[in-house]
Amino acid sequence: MKKKSKIKNQYYLPPGSIVSNAISNAETKIEIISFNEDFFEEKVCKNIDELFFEDRIGFNTWINVDGIHNNEIIEKIGKKFNIHYLTLEDVVNVDQRPKYENYDAYNVAFLKLLFYENDILKTEQLSIILTEKYIITFQEIIGGDPFNAIRERLRQAKGRVRKCGADYLAYALIDAVVDSYFIILDEVERKVDEFDLKLQEAPTPEILKQLHHARRELLFMRKSVAPMRELILNMSRDDDKLFTQTTQIYMRDLLDHQIRITESIDNYREIISEMVESYMSGTSFKMNEIMKVLTVISTFFIPLTFIVGVYGMNFDNMPELHTKYGYYFIWLAMIITVLSLLYYFRKKEWL
Amino acid sequence: MKKKSKIKNQYYLPPGSIVSNAISNAETKIEIISFNEDFFEEKVCKNIDELFFEDRIGFNTWINVDGIHNNEIIEKIGKKFNIHYLTLEDVVNVDQRPKYENYDAYNVAFLKLLFYENDILKTEQLSIILTEKYIITFQEIIGGDPFNAIRERLRQAKGRVRKCGADYLAYALIDAVVDSYFIILDEVERKVDEFDLKLQEAPTPEILKQLHHARRELLFMRKSVAPMRELILNMSRDDDKLFTQTTQIYMRDLLDHQIRITESIDNYREIISEMVESYMSGTSFKMNEIMKVLTVISTFFIPLTFIVGVYGMNFDNMPELHTKYGYYFIWLAMIITVLSLLYYFRKKEWL
Amino acid sequence: MKKKSKIKNQYYLPPGSIVSNAISNAETKIEIISFNEDFFEEKVCKNIDELFFEDRIGFNTWINVDGIHNNEIIEKIGKKFNIHYLTLEDVVNVDQRPKYENYDAYNVAFLKLLFYENDILKTEQLSIILTEKYIITFQEIIGGDPFNAIRERLRQAKGRVRKCGADYLAYALIDAVVDSYFIILDEVERKVDEFDLKLQEAPTPEILKQLHHARRELLFMRKSVAPMRELILNMSRDDDKLFTQTTQIYMRDLLDHQIRITESIDNYREIISEMVESYMSGTSFKMNEIMKVLTVISTFFIPLTFIVGVYGMNFDNMPELHTKYGYYFIWLAMIITVLSLLYYFRKKEWL
Amino acid sequence: MKKKSKIKNQYYLPPGSIVSNAISNAETKIEIISFNEDFFEEKVCKNIDELFFEDRIGFNTWINVDGIHNNEIIEKIGKKFNIHYLTLEDVVNVDQRPKYENYDAYNVAFLKLLFYENDILKTEQLSIILTEKYIITFQEIIGGDPFNAIRERLRQAKGRVRKCGADYLAYALIDAVVDSYFIILDEVERKVDEFDLKLQEAPTPEILKQLHHARRELLFMRKSVAPMRELILNMSRDDDKLFTQTTQIYMRDLLDHQIRITESIDNYREIISEMVESYMSGTSFKMNEIMKVLTVISTFFIPLTFIVGVYGMNFDNMPELHTKYGYYFIWLAMIITVLSLLYYFRKKEWL
Amino acid sequence: MKKKSKIKNQYYLPPGSIVSNAISNAETKIEIISFNEDFFEEKVCKNIDELFFEDRIGFNTWINVDGIHNNEIIEKIGKKFNIHYLTLEDVVNVDQRPKYENYDAYNVAFLKLLFYENDILKTEQLSIILTEKYIITFQEIIGGDPFNAIRERLRQAKGRVRKCGADYLAYALIDAVVDSYFIILDEVERKVDEFDLKLQEAPTPEILKQLHHARRELLFMRKSVAPMRELILNMSRDDDKLFTQTTQIYMRDLLDHQIRITESIDNYREIISEMVESYMSGTSFKMNEIMKVLTVISTFFIPLTFIVGVYGMNFDNMPELHTKYGYYFIWLAMIITVLSLLYYFRKKEWL
Repeated sequence: MKKKSKIKNQYYLPPGSIVSNAISNAETKIEIISFNEDFFEEKVCKNIDELFFEDRIGFNTWINVDGIHNNEIIEKIGKKFNIHYLTLEDVVNVDQRPKYENYDAYNVAFLKLLFYENDILKTEQLSIILTEKYIITFQEIIGGDPFNAIRERLRQAKGRVRKCGADYLAYALIDAVVDSYFIILDEVERKVDEFDLKLQEAPTPEILKQLHHARRELLFMRKSVAPMRELILNMSRDDDKLFTQTTQIYMRDLLDHQIRITESIDNYREIISEMVESYMSGTSFKMNEIMKVLTVISTFFIPLTFIVGVYGMNFDNMPELHTKYGYYFIWLAMIITVLSLLYYFRKKEWL
Repeated sequence: MKKKSKIKNQYYLPPGSIVSNAISNAETKIEIISFNEDFFEEKVCKNIDELFFEDRIGFNTWINVDGIHNNEIIEKIGKKFNIHYLTLEDVVNVDQRPKYENYDAYNVAFLKLLFYENDILKTEQLSIILTEKYIITFQEIIGGDPFNAIRERLRQAKGRVRKCGADYLAYALIDAVVDSYFIILDEVERKVDEFDLKLQEAPTPEILKQLHHARRELLFMRKSVAPMRELILNMSRDDDKLFTQTTQIYMRDLLDHQIRITESIDNYREIISEMVESYMSGTSFKMNEIMKVLTVISTFFIPLTFIVGVYGMNFDNMPELHTKYGYYFIWLAMIITVLSLLYYFRKKEWL
Repeated sequence: MKKKSKIKNQYYLPPGSIVSNAISNAETKIEIISFNEDFFEEKVCKNIDELFFEDRIGFNTWINVDGIHNNEIIEKIGKKFNIHYLTLEDVVNVDQRPKYENYDAYNVAFLKLLFYENDILKTEQLSIILTEKYIITFQEIIGGDPFNAIRERLRQAKGRVRKCGADYLAYALIDAVVDSYFIILDEVERKVDEFDLKLQEAPTPEILKQLHHARRELLFMRKSVAPMRELILNMSRDDDKLFTQTTQIYMRDLLDHQIRITESIDNYREIISEMVESYMSGTSFKMNEIMKVLTVISTFFIPLTFIVGVYGMNFDNMPELHTKYGYYFIWLAMIITVLSLLYYFRKKEWL
Repeated sequence: MKKKSKIKNQYYLPPGSIVSNAISNAETKIEIISFNEDFFEEKVCKNIDELFFEDRIGFNTWINVDGIHNNEIIEKIGKKFNIHYLTLEDVVNVDQRPKYENYDAYNVAFLKLLFYENDILKTEQLSIILTEKYIITFQEIIGGDPFNAIRERLRQAKGRVRKCGADYLAYALIDAVVDSYFIILDEVERKVDEFDLKLQEAPTPEILKQLHHARRELLFMRKSVAPMRELILNMSRDDDKLFTQTTQIYMRDLLDHQIRITESIDNYREIISEMVESYMSGTSFKMNEIMKVLTVISTFFIPLTFIVGVYGMNFDNMPELHTKYGYYFIWLAMIITVLSLLYYFRKKEWL
Repeated sequence: MKKKSKIKNQYYLPPGSIVSNAISNAETKIEIISFNEDFFEEKVCKNIDELFFEDRIGFNTWINVDGIHNNEIIEKIGKKFNIHYLTLEDVVNVDQRPKYENYDAYNVAFLKLLFYENDILKTEQLSIILTEKYIITFQEIIGGDPFNAIRERLRQAKGRVRKCGADYLAYALIDAVVDSYFIILDEVERKVDEFDLKLQEAPTPEILKQLHHARRELLFMRKSVAPMRELILNMSRDDDKLFTQTTQIYMRDLLDHQIRITESIDNYREIISEMVESYMSGTSFKMNEIMKVLTVISTFFIPLTFIVGVYGMNFDNMPELHTKYGYYFIWLAMIITVLSLLYYFRKKEWL
């Protein structure tokens, strides 16, 4: 649930050093989509210099950089688009918390993609650099993103994304990320419901463990989702006028989704607490009932067993053994013992 | 306590897609009430086109759409009244949190109706679109709403609702929703009181379970009720002047009711916690008392039983068995054992 | 600790309906006190119309209505003083939370009186309507209020209450209510101290139960006291200039008292938690000590009892029984068993 | 940890009644220190009228009233310095929370002195009335205050206190109070450290009790310290220009100390919680280990003891007893029983 | 985890007394680095007067004072640079919380360095005095700081630190401190992961203890880190224009790091709670299972053992013993007993 990709001595580097802590062997993939309302072009290039042979005036351009472990490529892009060294440092350092920052030449948003890999919840850092005409996205992990539906809409000129400018595309990308959180949340919800059912039927320590695990996942998820509120608010009150009035309305919708997710996460955490507590108190109640029975039975029989033990001794000289009614007397004594204990227990309201 | 009506791949749709996640086989029912101070007309139509044959100038009109699973009907209404696609998307997607949003042509409020079905607390989404002369309400579930008293008052020209405009009707509808929360709360209160009584008399794990269940219901209820505060505040500070000065005073009353409900929910949650905790600590105390008795009795008799066991052995050569006072000696030894244990326990303050 | 006087279908009434949910058989008592610096007149009338035969210009008048179950009387008073229907609805509905509201013709404060009846903490709703010259108070329960000292001071022209205007009287009434909270708090404090002492001496589950009960009382009290903060603040920043500069200084004192009570309530709740927790952890510690002794004694004697049981069997063919030193051997075996267990326990640090 | 000096019917008095709830038999001591940069005079008088024979123009004067149970003296001072009745009421009523109030003629600060008496943490109320040239302090308990160092510095003209005006003296007094909190905190810290050590070595229920006691002391301390934040802030933003620019800088330092103390109190409360929890979970773990051993031993030997009991019965007709290998068979049966239990336990991972 | 270097009677000193509570035998080391873009000079002097023989106009100068126990040196520096007595007092008193204060002649920041010494987390106070051209740092402990990378960059003119002014150096120093927190956090993270693994495999009370210890370390760390937020914000909104526009952008980055650390600390504290709780509930579940087995076995065998005990008694007159089928009858009785208990347990759902 946490990545071990940190370079231990990164802390000794001067601020603004572009040294990636993402690890990968694959080659960085650069995808360029240029479009306006009437035009669409899509291209994948691996040679970084290929990217810059022409300026695409009059179009909106989305440059998607898949993989951030190659510092050279990042630096070249940075130089081309006048990106501040601190921004580039944050792009390649995958420990950022979601945030939105204004620079003179551009704005930048850092987000976390969440996905399950082998049933383990993982994060991938997504950085989005916004200028008036360019959207540059950097993805930590090569391959796999929630943007295929957007690409399809761009290709087929469906929805508003081709008509509106780069700002709407930026919104659409972030909206896709937020929507992908709903899918994770549905998965957690499914698990919690399943655990709830199991707890009702046949509770095992395994389920309790998994409930706690689910709560940790929600904690993990919250860390990525909660700071997005500020991110979206900062985007909305953006003074650079990057976002048109039309996109602002969509942004409000986005904020609403973010709040819904955060509330759901908190809600599920409370529900899990409720489940664990309910189960624990139920178990404790049952346990107490069982212990009471053990106590009562033990308390009745232990003295009786002692009494019969006494007369099982083999001493030569035990006068009681040779009386005629001794045996019946002992039974009487034992019955009296039981009755007094019964009386005592009833008085104490233990039975 | 949660609906499973989500369409799993809804998240991949572009923003503003009107695809309902409410499920129903019944036919959508559209109810139109036109009124002013002197006039009242009520009509139910199932053919959607029927709705639009005439413009009702000079009247206030309440259009109540019962059922939101028919996307075609929703879209037609949307087109007629110039409703933004994002609004329509929210109307048909029943996972909204209560909110109030301003658009140019209209304002819209999303609320949750709460009701018990087979003793399970459920929600139904209610969307209210407000324009100067029209109130359009969309109800998720066909049949059953808390508005019959309002309809009756409209028919009989009782109360202020016929005299005041559409804004007062909108207030009255939301007030009816809030009042329906009080009924749910009374039911929860009744249950909690019943559990309290039962806990005093004869606690069972079943009651504990139901207490935890009640707390989850309150959590569930809170999720629907708490965001209404912001909703009502947004309505009150509405800049579009939809609400007259007169209605504003009622709005303040509404806010007061909302706060009372929220505080009551929080209060009951604390009371239930208190009850569970009180019960648990009482049980734990009793348990400890019982355990102490078991311990003491066991601790006294276990050594004694061992002693008598020794002299129940059948060895040929056991000299003690053949002494004259051996039996009496053993009794003495046992009494001394008991007394020393008694002394030890007293010293430790365990008795 | 909660009243059952709710009319279940009150929620279906239109807003502003004056239907009381206070229950009483007694007759409403109306008390009128007119005063200025030089003049004092006191009158009790039961006929409602009697109230209105003369206008009392030049005097301050306090009309105290004891009992709010007679809707007719309330409505008449409302008409006479131009009181809004929503206010009258709140006056007769005893579930209000403390609040202060401004209307054009008057301001109104809703408060809760707290008192013990048969050792049960109960609330009574007090509504205070303030105009420049009139103070109208409505008390839910007939008979018994904390205002006798104020009446006495009015009669005897003691203190500032005769010299100052109606606004000071309003302050004095609310101050008397707040002072009555201190008395309740002292009672709770006395109880908590008593429980603390008892817990030290001889804890019983009964005391734990009463501690939890006291905490619920504090919760109940908090619900009535906490919202008064806003009430007093609203009174202080009153724009209608009902309160003179002189009274404002007293208001600040009032706020200070309210804060002191709220802090004390929270403090006592924390102290009770501390007491319960301290007691529980102490008990748990003692329990563990006792259990350890049981465990050790059981663990020592259970194997020994088995050994002697073996040689108590009556098989014909048990060669050990007939050896000369068999009995002594068995003792040796038992001593070795005890010593090994002792060694094991010591190694595990259980003894 | 709380004083019982309340006069029960004080609540029925009109606001502004000067009736002290401090109890003392000793005589009130009045101490007057007049000083400026070049002059110093110190005088103790017991006759209250002596105080007023001369006006001390050109000097700063500190009047320290030790003991507030003599209402007559308080009233005389109040009349002399034009102190509002509400202020005097608060001065003699020792239940004030720390606060700072502005009046026309003066400002007033109420503080709590904390000290240990017989190992019990107690509070003493200190009221400081500030005018431009006079500082009047009222101390609840006669004798003992943390101001001796200040008196010494005044006498010896050390530090800034002689050079600066009355405002700096007021600051110095409050600073001395805050410094005295550090001493209490050091004492608590010393205790907590001692308990921590003891818990590591040999935990007893006594230590747990004292930890809970320390947490209650911190709660008690917090109640006196936390509201001082607002007090100091109010002093700093004082509009009456009582405090010079120079003293303002010292005030910021004072605020910093107050925050440090509050943070330390909260920190220690968390540390104690941590200690209690750590200890409890450790104990619980050990307990479980011990219980497991008891369970295993009992579970093994209880069935065996039953078996040997069977063949200890004295029935005439028990054929097994007379077979040749019956005894060895029984041993075999017992070994098989043990082995199956062992297998079962291993399978369940209990051993 | 806490230093004992307090001088107990420091509280009785007048405000602004420069008496260090840092303890050391080593000699104070003063290090002077003068630089501008083209020039670099580094010098270590032990004689305090050596420091002041020349004014270094045109350069930025960093004076690093290693050791603050020598009051004479501190006072001399204070006099030279016009530092307020309250600042000097705070510099030598190592109990400051992180803060940033503005004075006329300079600004000052107090920070805490965190480091592990013999596996114990310790703090060292760092005070940074900023003027336009001078940076003066005071370190509590002689030797060891996280600034070697900065010194190296200064020497080799690497990074921006030589080009930018004293303000950037101040930023760089604080950034190095914050980066050193990340290293501590990584260590804690490593430990928590290790404990998590161990808890899964073989939980011991030792691990629980260390988890609680780690949580206390995080608490300790939080105390040093959390107040830095305000410190950095105060630096950013500095009105004295000490920080250039360029450095402001870096400051924003610094704030972001601080937030990340604080969130991580809170996150780890929650994760540890989750781990402890998960482990405890798992253990409790297992315990209950074991107890149930003990209870069942005891409850079955205790009555049986009593029965066989009865017929092991040696009374002369026990008729049952001499009947022909008595022995078989007893077996029957015992089987019936077991079956009834079995039925009872099944009915109660305990098996």
